[in-house]
Amino acid sequence: MRIAIIGSGALGLYYGAMLQRGGNDVRFLLRSDHDAIRERGLTVHSVAGDFHLPVVTGVRDPGELGECDLVIVALKTFANGRLPELVPPAVGEGTLVLTLQNGLGNEEALAAIVGGHRVLGGVAFLCANRLESGSVHHLGAGRILVGEYEEHDHRRVERVAEMFRQAGVECGAVEDLVRARWEKLVWNIPFNGLSALLQRPVDFLVSFAPLRALVRELMLEVVAAAGTQTKNGPLSGRYADAMIEFTEGMGPYQPSMMIDRRLGRQLELDSIFAIPLERALHAGVPMVRVQELHALLLAGEQQGDLHSL
Amino acid sequence: MRIAIIGSGALGLYYGAMLQRGGNDVRFLLRSDHDAIRERGLTVHSVAGDFHLPVVTGVRDPGELGECDLVIVALKTFANGRLPELVPPAVGEGTLVLTLQNGLGNEEALAAIVGGHRVLGGVAFLCANRLESGSVHHLGAGRILVGEYEEHDHRRVERVAEMFRQAGVECGAVEDLVRARWEKLVWNIPFNGLSALLQRPVDFLVSFAPLRALVRELMLEVVAAAGTQTKNGPLSGRYADAMIEFTEGMGPYQPSMMIDRRLGRQLELDSIFAIPLERALHAGVPMVRVQELHALLLAGEQQGDLHSL
Repeated sequence: MRIAIIGSGALGLYYGAMLQRGGNDVRFLLRSDHDAIRERGLTVHSVAGDFHLPVVTGVRDPGELGECDLVIVALKTFANGRLPELVPPAVGEGTLVLTLQNGLGNEEALAAIVGGHRVLGGVAFLCANRLESGSVHHLGAGRILVGEYEEHDHRRVERVAEMFRQAGVECGAVEDLVRARWEKLVWNIPFNGLSALLQRPVDFLVSFAPLRALVRELMLEVVAAAGTQTKNGPLSGRYADAMIEFTEGMGPYQPSMMIDRRLGRQLELDSIFAIPLERALHAGVPMVRVQELHALLLAGEQQGDLHSL
Repeated sequence: MRIAIIGSGALGLYYGAMLQRGGNDVRFLLRSDHDAIRERGLTVHSVAGDFHLPVVTGVRDPGELGECDLVIVALKTFANGRLPELVPPAVGEGTLVLTLQNGLGNEEALAAIVGGHRVLGGVAFLCANRLESGSVHHLGAGRILVGEYEEHDHRRVERVAEMFRQAGVECGAVEDLVRARWEKLVWNIPFNGLSALLQRPVDFLVSFAPLRALVRELMLEVVAAAGTQTKNGPLSGRYADAMIEFTEGMGPYQPSMMIDRRLGRQLELDSIFAIPLERALHAGVPMVRVQELHALLLAGEQQGDLHSL
């Protein structure tokens, strides 16, 4: 399969490398890593075993990607304004476009550009960092759930899931992509948000009683809002407790948003907060605590203040 | 009038100095400033004109205060556990005890020690700092509203108010002390809380749209809870907007809680947050956004983390 990777952060590089190692023709759209990867290839340091790809196809110009069978979008969501320029050059008649980005609104953004019939969405559970040029560190997990944006042909989804599995990536096909996205938000909203705001790892958030209570209340707001969005019925309130228990096993894990805030990087607040808040409000189930957390996080995104929280 | 000042931070020193200058016999219970004030007296640097009191009665031991007509309590509220040891030595048959402390729960704490019949409460609107030993800086305002904890004899309240006015302190007697306390919380909860958490002055909080909206929502929660507590009917929702407009005139003012957090000092979270939250919840009007802000502030009070926000 010929696959384009748009957005070569840790997630794009990791899945792209896995797919190339699995025998696919993978083409990376690169910016900062372009020269390093063209010269020395790509190294994956992984909990499942390191590997190196000596020859990698990396281009700077999307026009050089050529028409692909599958375009995987792994751009940070605040850069979605660039999708109209980055994605179409690799899209032909039979091309599928899969977004593995965080939060909500990404399938819609792609549908407006390439048509909803070719859009798939995936929720990735991956712990990975990009540190030095030309390499990616896979710290754990990696499972993906993929589904269709519109209901056309579920077998396409099965084929994409099978392609990932053939490449050694755990992957499931889901009927209800919206549900999978909201389920991930149940974790992302409290843990990414609070860890970024307070600069404390997840073990503090689940062990300090007032924050643990707040985490749970935030989760229950997301669960309630999710119930208005999914086609297969509401999420269970038990899901919040299960997620908290699951998080207790993570130790002093620092979510990516905590690290990004510490390094003064822009956060994905639109896809993880603003769009979910808007949809919940529109459905008549406002998430008031989530909205407060969003406002507090926005304050830290103001010019000249990125490091001051 | 013989007056004891218990708690000689900026507020206690300022009002004590004004009362002494006004002709009263004022005795200060001192700790850190004791030697400096005994040796060199007390200097007030004030927007209304500086003055110096060369001889000041300051004691370290509450047993040396002697029986007073009025005991003014100006202790930080997190030190209220020390009231049983500090207040009774100055209290005789006809003594009144006036707390000028922040938030809720202070009249109750004093009533349990000296009896509710002698307890008055005052809400102080004062901008003052204590910097170098033996002096206090009065930056603005200073008005006090005083009222009775229990309804006994409103003329006593009028006399205390008159005593302050004689000493040049703007002071009014109120029928509904609880209402005055809650009205002050409408300002204190959002502006003290958010400025401490985000380390941003009030002009940022009222000019950055997401925070201005949050300030207003926090205020409306306090207004709604206040309506269940006051005897003279609910506060108007207009009160929140009036407070926001009022704050716009303050410029880059840094509330005391913002400064205290920056300096790693303990915050008065019980009297300004925990007790109001408890009373609102008990009255069936939970303040969910206030509770979230409280939890976030509590996280920063954890040992070893006082400077990390």
